[in-house]
Amino acid sequence: MAFNRKDLLGIRELSAEEITTILDAVDSFREISDRDIKKVPTLRGKTVINLFFEPSTRTRTSFEIAAKRLSADTINISVSTSSITKGETLADTASNLQAMAPDATVIRHSSPGVPQQLSRLVEAAIINAGDGAHEHPTQALLDAYTIRERKRKIAGLQIAIIGDIMHSRVARSNTHLLTRLGAHVRVAGPRTLIPPYYDRLIENSEGSLTVSDNIEEAIAGADAIMMLRIQKERMSEAFFPSIKEYSIQYGLTSARLGLADPDCIVLHPGPVNRGVEISSDVLDSSRSLVLDQVANGVAVRMAILFLLVGRVGE
Amino acid sequence: MAFNRKDLLGIRELSAEEITTILDAVDSFREISDRDIKKVPTLRGKTVINLFFEPSTRTRTSFEIAAKRLSADTINISVSTSSITKGETLADTASNLQAMAPDATVIRHSSPGVPQQLSRLVEAAIINAGDGAHEHPTQALLDAYTIRERKRKIAGLQIAIIGDIMHSRVARSNTHLLTRLGAHVRVAGPRTLIPPYYDRLIENSEGSLTVSDNIEEAIAGADAIMMLRIQKERMSEAFFPSIKEYSIQYGLTSARLGLADPDCIVLHPGPVNRGVEISSDVLDSSRSLVLDQVANGVAVRMAILFLLVGRVGE
Amino acid sequence: MAFNRKDLLGIRELSAEEITTILDAVDSFREISDRDIKKVPTLRGKTVINLFFEPSTRTRTSFEIAAKRLSADTINISVSTSSITKGETLADTASNLQAMAPDATVIRHSSPGVPQQLSRLVEAAIINAGDGAHEHPTQALLDAYTIRERKRKIAGLQIAIIGDIMHSRVARSNTHLLTRLGAHVRVAGPRTLIPPYYDRLIENSEGSLTVSDNIEEAIAGADAIMMLRIQKERMSEAFFPSIKEYSIQYGLTSARLGLADPDCIVLHPGPVNRGVEISSDVLDSSRSLVLDQVANGVAVRMAILFLLVGRVGE
Repeated sequence: MAFNRKDLLGIRELSAEEITTILDAVDSFREISDRDIKKVPTLRGKTVINLFFEPSTRTRTSFEIAAKRLSADTINISVSTSSITKGETLADTASNLQAMAPDATVIRHSSPGVPQQLSRLVEAAIINAGDGAHEHPTQALLDAYTIRERKRKIAGLQIAIIGDIMHSRVARSNTHLLTRLGAHVRVAGPRTLIPPYYDRLIENSEGSLTVSDNIEEAIAGADAIMMLRIQKERMSEAFFPSIKEYSIQYGLTSARLGLADPDCIVLHPGPVNRGVEISSDVLDSSRSLVLDQVANGVAVRMAILFLLVGRVGE
Repeated sequence: MAFNRKDLLGIRELSAEEITTILDAVDSFREISDRDIKKVPTLRGKTVINLFFEPSTRTRTSFEIAAKRLSADTINISVSTSSITKGETLADTASNLQAMAPDATVIRHSSPGVPQQLSRLVEAAIINAGDGAHEHPTQALLDAYTIRERKRKIAGLQIAIIGDIMHSRVARSNTHLLTRLGAHVRVAGPRTLIPPYYDRLIENSEGSLTVSDNIEEAIAGADAIMMLRIQKERMSEAFFPSIKEYSIQYGLTSARLGLADPDCIVLHPGPVNRGVEISSDVLDSSRSLVLDQVANGVAVRMAILFLLVGRVGE
Repeated sequence: MAFNRKDLLGIRELSAEEITTILDAVDSFREISDRDIKKVPTLRGKTVINLFFEPSTRTRTSFEIAAKRLSADTINISVSTSSITKGETLADTASNLQAMAPDATVIRHSSPGVPQQLSRLVEAAIINAGDGAHEHPTQALLDAYTIRERKRKIAGLQIAIIGDIMHSRVARSNTHLLTRLGAHVRVAGPRTLIPPYYDRLIENSEGSLTVSDNIEEAIAGADAIMMLRIQKERMSEAFFPSIKEYSIQYGLTSARLGLADPDCIVLHPGPVNRGVEISSDVLDSSRSLVLDQVANGVAVRMAILFLLVGRVGE
């Protein structure tokens, strides 16, 4: 099956077939980064703009490496130097970028829906690299790829997603993706950090999604556990009493991991607050696939750039 | 005719023949950005440094894309990380850059004349990307190219330049360029924002330049209108009472555009303050060539880089 | 002789043979920057990350140009946008970078030993671009190359290093390098700015290292003088009374240079505080090799990247 979209805006609108098409495409890009010459001419003469309205080392670097290993030209634009601050509307920024004829624009923005808006305004492929608490589709794709690589499947797995669900675009994109591919998703975190949006998701989930404030319940027998990042700067909003309290109640320790399936794997989108979301011994164990996620992230982004930009003229 | 200068420092010193040579050269670069493979090997193995002492997304991005589509290596240096802040003189910075053997240095600086100073100190081609309120030659060239593309000529046209003339390097470079190519230029703006410098220009203009504080007068029968950007941060200097007042007196509305020639085109160097310099309906109409300007900007910068750097050994 | 290390962490651990191997390799890269096409395909498909935890225009630019002239892909990461600020440990940052499969990581950090730590954690070649007051090996190598280029040797030369020894990684790396290659090094600066560490170096130097607070004594008959940069921001720590006082006591003037060998050369790592460390007439004289140092810096970094990364599969 082909992937025939102009953009990658979110997981929610993708069919199981489309998701599988992307994951299958990743395989051929995965090994390029292991070669002596880590570069293919696929996107030679294409321009990829990284337009980041929120700071990000990791995601920006991953996209930049992906684009360069495909031989694309990359342009980095970060918010601090952007003309947005000069009073220009997003629509005008978009039109201006379009006039420079990029082939793809990777965008991160603190407001949900900005990539969608951009997409309507420009011909270039738009890739959502995170929009507020809404979606972060390449993260969910790399998580799914990492799980599938180890477990040989997604369908039928019991997967726990633990932490600050409310503010997590990672949780949201993964919930859509994993349930769509037939996994059972168990979301857990402090009640104050589970948004009403999940009630609707549960209604439409035909039993494939459950929500709880009990981490042990979510972990019991799980095949995979995704721990979410705690934004320490959110502590001031007092969603939970303290980092330490959070860690005691929702941190992943060896003891808790013992409740899961003996082959259970552990994921985290990074950067990890060691000893907060995940204890050091779990993080450094062979159960943890955090570094596989990073390596797969480059390959997933290469595949997305290829699928959206690389097949003109085929 | 060939273009035999080492640098592009300003429009004022260029002859009509030189300007025409540049504009003619742009044509062959214009279509590269429309290709599937937007890249030619013209500047392979050349190094272009973007040395920006003032923040700029738009101009820096345009030069960076232009250089990359010519296969040059690009290095971005922004003021905040520059050694200038460590107490080094401009001459020493220049010499140091020269020692790294760049082929061209694109420079933006808040002080008029800095590109000229640099030019005397280094062998590399210096391209002025804006020096204080002095000159911004690539902007004037892309404006002229955009006008010529639509009007098939520059000579004989009536062209209005409206706004904060005093602080505008765009107004200054365009006044030089357009009068040199035989257009009649009508400069208009608040009296407090028209510098004495223009009195001398008028004296030498043989009637091809007029100045007024009446926008209707400047627009009447015009073939092209260039609206200048209002720097909101200048409001504190109280050159005019308020943004709203300015907009009422000097903003371009449909009604005012009705005074111009029926085929009159509208330009703005961007980013536009919507509803301030230009009303939204005018900005979004087919009269507005703001996005053509951006697209042509990349091509103009490719042409300049080619003319200054690309023909070694010919 | 081959250079068989994984990393370039410091000069101290290098043998005279290894240093000579590097210096000999520089020759073949020196002329690439003088070519019309300043680029060789040596590192095509390799990824070089510039990871700067301290701001630096000069060193970062030099490494970036070096990598690009070898056809490597370069990724710049600066501290302000780094996830380190999000509470991640250095080990985790290192592992994450490694997962993106760079071939080399160039690192600058304010803490001594960070490149060593990184090296143990990752497979990529680590190049120390300055770690606190500890080492700055590529600077010492370019200094030595510049001296050898002019003097045709290092062994037997009398070389003065003058200034704030305590805070200078340049002084430290050069002291190790020059004594190892058989030069006699005379370190001079205010007593308060010579650390106890040098006492131990003297003990092991077999007479090839002397320390003094008298600049005239250090300069007398010298073949080369390296002036160190004064960090004006250190003045508040009151290591010496004032910039002016420092300049009078330790600045290099024509008069003082007259005490040296008639063919004595002058070096400075830059950026120079004109009239503070070196008087303008000396800096602009043919004795000063400051710009040769910069030009050689690019070649030295090309050689290092080649030796560490470019010979896989040979």
